[in-house]
Amino acid sequence: MEILILHGPNLNLLGERDTAQYGALTLTDIEERLRSEAQRLDIQPRFFQSNHEGVLIDSLHEARHWASGVLINPAGLTHTSVALRDAIEAIPVPTIEVHLSNIFAREPFRRESLTAQACVGVIAGFGWNSYILGLHALTELNKRDNPGA
Amino acid sequence: MEILILHGPNLNLLGERDTAQYGALTLTDIEERLRSEAQRLDIQPRFFQSNHEGVLIDSLHEARHWASGVLINPAGLTHTSVALRDAIEAIPVPTIEVHLSNIFAREPFRRESLTAQACVGVIAGFGWNSYILGLHALTELNKRDNPGA
Amino acid sequence: MEILILHGPNLNLLGERDTAQYGALTLTDIEERLRSEAQRLDIQPRFFQSNHEGVLIDSLHEARHWASGVLINPAGLTHTSVALRDAIEAIPVPTIEVHLSNIFAREPFRRESLTAQACVGVIAGFGWNSYILGLHALTELNKRDNPGA
Amino acid sequence: MEILILHGPNLNLLGERDTAQYGALTLTDIEERLRSEAQRLDIQPRFFQSNHEGVLIDSLHEARHWASGVLINPAGLTHTSVALRDAIEAIPVPTIEVHLSNIFAREPFRRESLTAQACVGVIAGFGWNSYILGLHALTELNKRDNPGA
Amino acid sequence: MEILILHGPNLNLLGERDTAQYGALTLTDIEERLRSEAQRLDIQPRFFQSNHEGVLIDSLHEARHWASGVLINPAGLTHTSVALRDAIEAIPVPTIEVHLSNIFAREPFRRESLTAQACVGVIAGFGWNSYILGLHALTELNKRDNPGA
Amino acid sequence: MEILILHGPNLNLLGERDTAQYGALTLTDIEERLRSEAQRLDIQPRFFQSNHEGVLIDSLHEARHWASGVLINPAGLTHTSVALRDAIEAIPVPTIEVHLSNIFAREPFRRESLTAQACVGVIAGFGWNSYILGLHALTELNKRDNPGA
Amino acid sequence: MEILILHGPNLNLLGERDTAQYGALTLTDIEERLRSEAQRLDIQPRFFQSNHEGVLIDSLHEARHWASGVLINPAGLTHTSVALRDAIEAIPVPTIEVHLSNIFAREPFRRESLTAQACVGVIAGFGWNSYILGLHALTELNKRDNPGA
Amino acid sequence: MEILILHGPNLNLLGERDTAQYGALTLTDIEERLRSEAQRLDIQPRFFQSNHEGVLIDSLHEARHWASGVLINPAGLTHTSVALRDAIEAIPVPTIEVHLSNIFAREPFRRESLTAQACVGVIAGFGWNSYILGLHALTELNKRDNPGA
Amino acid sequence: MEILILHGPNLNLLGERDTAQYGALTLTDIEERLRSEAQRLDIQPRFFQSNHEGVLIDSLHEARHWASGVLINPAGLTHTSVALRDAIEAIPVPTIEVHLSNIFAREPFRRESLTAQACVGVIAGFGWNSYILGLHALTELNKRDNPGA
Amino acid sequence: MEILILHGPNLNLLGERDTAQYGALTLTDIEERLRSEAQRLDIQPRFFQSNHEGVLIDSLHEARHWASGVLINPAGLTHTSVALRDAIEAIPVPTIEVHLSNIFAREPFRRESLTAQACVGVIAGFGWNSYILGLHALTELNKRDNPGA
Amino acid sequence: MEILILHGPNLNLLGERDTAQYGALTLTDIEERLRSEAQRLDIQPRFFQSNHEGVLIDSLHEARHWASGVLINPAGLTHTSVALRDAIEAIPVPTIEVHLSNIFAREPFRRESLTAQACVGVIAGFGWNSYILGLHALTELNKRDNPGA
Amino acid sequence: MEILILHGPNLNLLGERDTAQYGALTLTDIEERLRSEAQRLDIQPRFFQSNHEGVLIDSLHEARHWASGVLINPAGLTHTSVALRDAIEAIPVPTIEVHLSNIFAREPFRRESLTAQACVGVIAGFGWNSYILGLHALTELNKRDNPGA
Repeated sequence: MEILILHGPNLNLLGERDTAQYGALTLTDIEERLRSEAQRLDIQPRFFQSNHEGVLIDSLHEARHWASGVLINPAGLTHTSVALRDAIEAIPVPTIEVHLSNIFAREPFRRESLTAQACVGVIAGFGWNSYILGLHALTELNKRDNPGA
Repeated sequence: MEILILHGPNLNLLGERDTAQYGALTLTDIEERLRSEAQRLDIQPRFFQSNHEGVLIDSLHEARHWASGVLINPAGLTHTSVALRDAIEAIPVPTIEVHLSNIFAREPFRRESLTAQACVGVIAGFGWNSYILGLHALTELNKRDNPGA
Repeated sequence: MEILILHGPNLNLLGERDTAQYGALTLTDIEERLRSEAQRLDIQPRFFQSNHEGVLIDSLHEARHWASGVLINPAGLTHTSVALRDAIEAIPVPTIEVHLSNIFAREPFRRESLTAQACVGVIAGFGWNSYILGLHALTELNKRDNPGA
Repeated sequence: MEILILHGPNLNLLGERDTAQYGALTLTDIEERLRSEAQRLDIQPRFFQSNHEGVLIDSLHEARHWASGVLINPAGLTHTSVALRDAIEAIPVPTIEVHLSNIFAREPFRRESLTAQACVGVIAGFGWNSYILGLHALTELNKRDNPGA
Repeated sequence: MEILILHGPNLNLLGERDTAQYGALTLTDIEERLRSEAQRLDIQPRFFQSNHEGVLIDSLHEARHWASGVLINPAGLTHTSVALRDAIEAIPVPTIEVHLSNIFAREPFRRESLTAQACVGVIAGFGWNSYILGLHALTELNKRDNPGA
Repeated sequence: MEILILHGPNLNLLGERDTAQYGALTLTDIEERLRSEAQRLDIQPRFFQSNHEGVLIDSLHEARHWASGVLINPAGLTHTSVALRDAIEAIPVPTIEVHLSNIFAREPFRRESLTAQACVGVIAGFGWNSYILGLHALTELNKRDNPGA
Repeated sequence: MEILILHGPNLNLLGERDTAQYGALTLTDIEERLRSEAQRLDIQPRFFQSNHEGVLIDSLHEARHWASGVLINPAGLTHTSVALRDAIEAIPVPTIEVHLSNIFAREPFRRESLTAQACVGVIAGFGWNSYILGLHALTELNKRDNPGA
Repeated sequence: MEILILHGPNLNLLGERDTAQYGALTLTDIEERLRSEAQRLDIQPRFFQSNHEGVLIDSLHEARHWASGVLINPAGLTHTSVALRDAIEAIPVPTIEVHLSNIFAREPFRRESLTAQACVGVIAGFGWNSYILGLHALTELNKRDNPGA
Repeated sequence: MEILILHGPNLNLLGERDTAQYGALTLTDIEERLRSEAQRLDIQPRFFQSNHEGVLIDSLHEARHWASGVLINPAGLTHTSVALRDAIEAIPVPTIEVHLSNIFAREPFRRESLTAQACVGVIAGFGWNSYILGLHALTELNKRDNPGA
Repeated sequence: MEILILHGPNLNLLGERDTAQYGALTLTDIEERLRSEAQRLDIQPRFFQSNHEGVLIDSLHEARHWASGVLINPAGLTHTSVALRDAIEAIPVPTIEVHLSNIFAREPFRRESLTAQACVGVIAGFGWNSYILGLHALTELNKRDNPGA
Repeated sequence: MEILILHGPNLNLLGERDTAQYGALTLTDIEERLRSEAQRLDIQPRFFQSNHEGVLIDSLHEARHWASGVLINPAGLTHTSVALRDAIEAIPVPTIEVHLSNIFAREPFRRESLTAQACVGVIAGFGWNSYILGLHALTELNKRDNPGA
Repeated sequence: MEILILHGPNLNLLGERDTAQYGALTLTDIEERLRSEAQRLDIQPRFFQSNHEGVLIDSLHEARHWASGVLINPAGLTHTSVALRDAIEAIPVPTIEVHLSNIFAREPFRRESLTAQACVGVIAGFGWNSYILGLHALTELNKRDNPGA
């Protein structure tokens, strides 16, 4: 099972600032842990980060040719991008939205998610562990869709 | 590690109706699966369901004497109960909000969560697997807080 | 044909205060009249009043085992309870919402009904006669669903 | 007892389209049933349908000279016409608002009723039976106002 | 100087009901007083009342051929009719909006005027005297536009 | 192919005022051009203008007996008439909304269209050419629905 | 009959700027014309202008000892001052609100009047003539309250 | 003079958490101080705390048989419960709302009080002293209503 | 202990009008009662009333040199003055907001308090007794801050 | 006459998914039909699709050097991009907005268009034919601006 | 070049409280620095501070006789005063709004500026340096308007 | 001192269009003047313009390695980009927002700034001089942070 793990704007700076809010690990640290857990679950992850809405959309489009699932952390685009929302809806790959922080306990403009409307589900508030939980959730989805696999 | 798994109003009817939205399993079915996964994770779960806001609050209060974590699915109270939100905030037990369906993709009045503001995080949209993911999340939180355990 | 007639918060005080708004009859007076009209229509009503949202929900749940219809006056919960709304939606019994007063001609916060969204229909503004009309409506619904009966 | 039964815009097309929402009966079918029930209740109904707000208002005005009650289904004008609302308020004839569908469970713009603010009460969601229930309600109002009659 | 005095929906019932709000004079009484004051001011008024938005619009259109000014009391259409607003804007005749009651001290939905946006000015709250003041205002406007007259 | 071309309130005054906004052609001028283009497309148009919401609704109702398509410019009713919207929805004739001006670049209250919700599509901002484009669009719709024709 | 004519903030600059909006007359010019018309109506006006909300309130309070009526142009305070609104309500002197421009056709924040809620009526849009019409309105109010005078 | 002192949801946990916001005293501590001050004022208080909206309503209903006044701290229900609001309104006992914290200086959703609309008055922000002030206020109300007592 | 008791706009007219809402006592009557209660509590009050926002702010500023507490009834400025709110926040003297009437049970625009956000607490709805309760509250605050005094 | 036809985010996936909403043709299919119609109209179209807001803006900027018109389908950016709106406004080339679906009959967040405010007009709801109509509209605009051409 | 530097409510207390938000300098300290910088720029500043909206307006009016520019910090009146906004608009002197703190990063009610709508521009967030930047901006404006000076 | 001067979407077209709003200088002209002033202040500026949100974010990220300050004109992204706002917040470089026009005096959607919430301050309305003032502001910030420099 191959999946895409997509990080949105500013996540390349993880571990540098606001560690109270987002934790002290860098994106590389997180990806390492994800790779290890993925291996345990027999998942091949491909990681990708971009600060460009368009690049994230291209990347989702391209994933429809090879991925069985997507984990996406749309970051600041969560609340503003109809285009990204439509991209998730447009591909036939189950997509899960993850957030490091609990967006429901932050500023009002972060409490609404446009992108989540096109996702299977949302996991938010568990730091880098939100991604790990997302891996588990994708595994379960996959089992459900491919019962004999 | 002992935890409370709290089900809000109408969840006792799971498996009876609207199975497209909520799945075909009954609450007993789900609890069985949770018990089995909990055992694997060395967690002792206590299950409780009520249609009464006040009983749910009492139950949260009482859990502060024995529980190391709470999984709560506040169901319809998610969107309306400041009292339940305050109860979650009032106890020193980390609490995770779970939902069977993806509340962000449903009616507008279901897209806002008052209770999530007082929780560590939220997991929504994975059917009964949302609870399983919640168990995993609690385990991780516990490890972080009790590194030597 | 057995039905549940459910009265929400504060309706036990009917006839005591604000008789200009709600009429001079007590709940017992109204139930007497309803019993008499029900008999005429060959309906067996069971009456229940509670000030507890949870008890009303329990009562609706329990009714799915025996009732062919429900008349509910959710009173103050009409405007605030998603949980009660979901309970009505969760049971396979046709439910009709009734109000003594015309809620659409009162304070703005009384003009919106969450519970009505899950009901067959609404009857409001005819004092205790709203319930009588509700009985008639249930009879007709029953005829339509059981044409041969 | 003479009453006016007033049908608003587009109700002349009943039975032609959207029968899932409004039922398969034509307006003539409904009026026939109403006439029969009215006879049973010793009521003389006069029926009138118009797609013109102004004609409906004229008709309400004129009714103040002869009618003891009005049943009105304002259809699309329910949500937009202050002028119709004021006409109902301006005549000393008790008026009841009826709707075929449960307007509280439809699009948001249909959940608010301007005209209901000037009516005795509202009956919605019972198909053509909403009118029958309205007849009963008018009969009761009449009894209450003319106890010796 | 010929002018049109246009009365909107329900004003034909003046003097019949809600005399606390609108005064005890009938429309005929008011028109008599207006005719007398108009004579004093050397104005020829034509009176017209209709409950039909369309008829009022036609009447405004037609007035562009003969009238030097319009007094309009749009009644309930004040708050809802973009079409009437556009009609006032579409004719090259100065139009003044009058109201018997002080609409700014009534229900919130009466505090906004769509039609006033297309008028020269507004006079509200002086009972039938609002019309008299409107006559004076038109006289002044006319003087200003035809200084030599 | 016979179609109805329906003009709403105040469009009879086209060419008289606000020519910056609406162009210098009269309605007769526009209809002439439409007739010529229609002939080219083998369409028989019937033109109708009214300032009366009710008359426009009647006209739509009547069109269901003979028309294969409707072009409607609801003018000021675009933003306020649920009744007109319901009439468009009630007839089984494909309807296209046209506007002379670009309503999305005008006052906020003109940016919302109730009627468009019931139409096939919308064309706005091209002066009288909006109607011409509407003719083309109807032709295409007709081809699609009657491929052999 | 003695009356107070009260001008709010910035009206002392009349005639200096934005003469397209407010006219070319200075406040002194206007007061001269008002004095002359007042004399004709047998009214003794006292004029007062202030840019201070508090001074305007004091002035209204003081007027309750001697004035039979008040004309007030609250200018920018119209839309923001609850205190001024309460002052008008607190004194037993009939008060009329006047505006030079038609505030209902200007920026959205100028379309709401807090002060008008406490006034007898409103006259807006007639330049300095709004005050003249206000004088006439006060005269009529006085006649009505003192029929024998 | 007998009174009811009613504590809403989560107040049983007072003194345990968030002592910066609510103070360090437990509910028992507060009740002790209230008992002592009540004695000084010749008042017999009965204390009651519940996390159940319905129990609070029952308790208010029951109080109408014996209490001369009610102090209520509705806690989280302040902002959401129409049913509790109606219960306060339904009993003929003067009721005063108290809050430990200044709810007007907290999160926006805490700044609105539904229940206060049915109370005599509100006292908020003085910690446990809010209750003491409430006792004084009830004493004064009682004196005013029973001047000879 | 010296305190400032500050009355906002229009309170100088107390006892003259709207005695149903505000009571029959004049401001002098109230101050007399406050003086007497203050003496009992060993408080030296200085009274000040103004209709001028600026004067109230000056007075608060000046009070920071001598007062140990402030009671303020901002009247109509409660809902509109950010400047007054900032003045309360700017001085290091504990300030309590009082209102004669229960502002939460009045017009919507009176239910929000800007000034309360900067106060220790709020007391509303007890007529002149609101001030007496405010005196008690200040005494308690003073005790708490000066435990040895 | 050379024109730019610009497709926004996700339109490269046309024909793959949600064909009920957007039709079964791919973007290449549509462009073929457009090329053929363009040829008929003596127009040279250049096609461009991008999922990147910035690339679309660059492309509009660049078009000011060679294009006589632009057809743009901003897709999801329609509702969120002020930058794209400003780009349309910044170039002196007439631009027409087209949509495949009728955005006014979809989710509320799709009913508002920021970009349309800067366009000549809008065509929505006719599938790929919206583009064809756009070609016709550009041709007409060109004729009007270059009458001698 | 003579300019007016106008400080709004509560700025006289600068340096006394909330120095985290507003800095530790007093208004006198700031004015000293401004005087020195002004000298360097060949500007003669006159300073004025008032807590009275009316006095600020008077001061702006008076400045139209002598000042070539105004720097205004409207403080709390920024968000509430239409009268102050109109005063700025009413004088032919270019006015610049300055704020010590970044009002866009504070409470929501501070993010809107009524007064800025009538100013040339806004400078906010640089402490007392906001005024210095304002001096520079006025100098540049002056150069632009008096190129030969 | 090295700084980044970042120009958002469409600013590359400065001087071409809407010169009334934005001035006649091109971006190159402005940068020349900035370079000259920067030299005077001993600042080394690097200029960068992009129409791509992602490129602007990348550029901010990269600046954290070398820049001591940022001047940003986010143009249309000011009002819509949470991602850009988060990028500003994520880097430890003081950032100042500048605008050529006074965004508070333009369309309502331009009056709110998301990005300004993460900046030190805002300067708007002074044409290209807004940038010059921003240079001065950065110089002062730098002095404050490096007092010995």
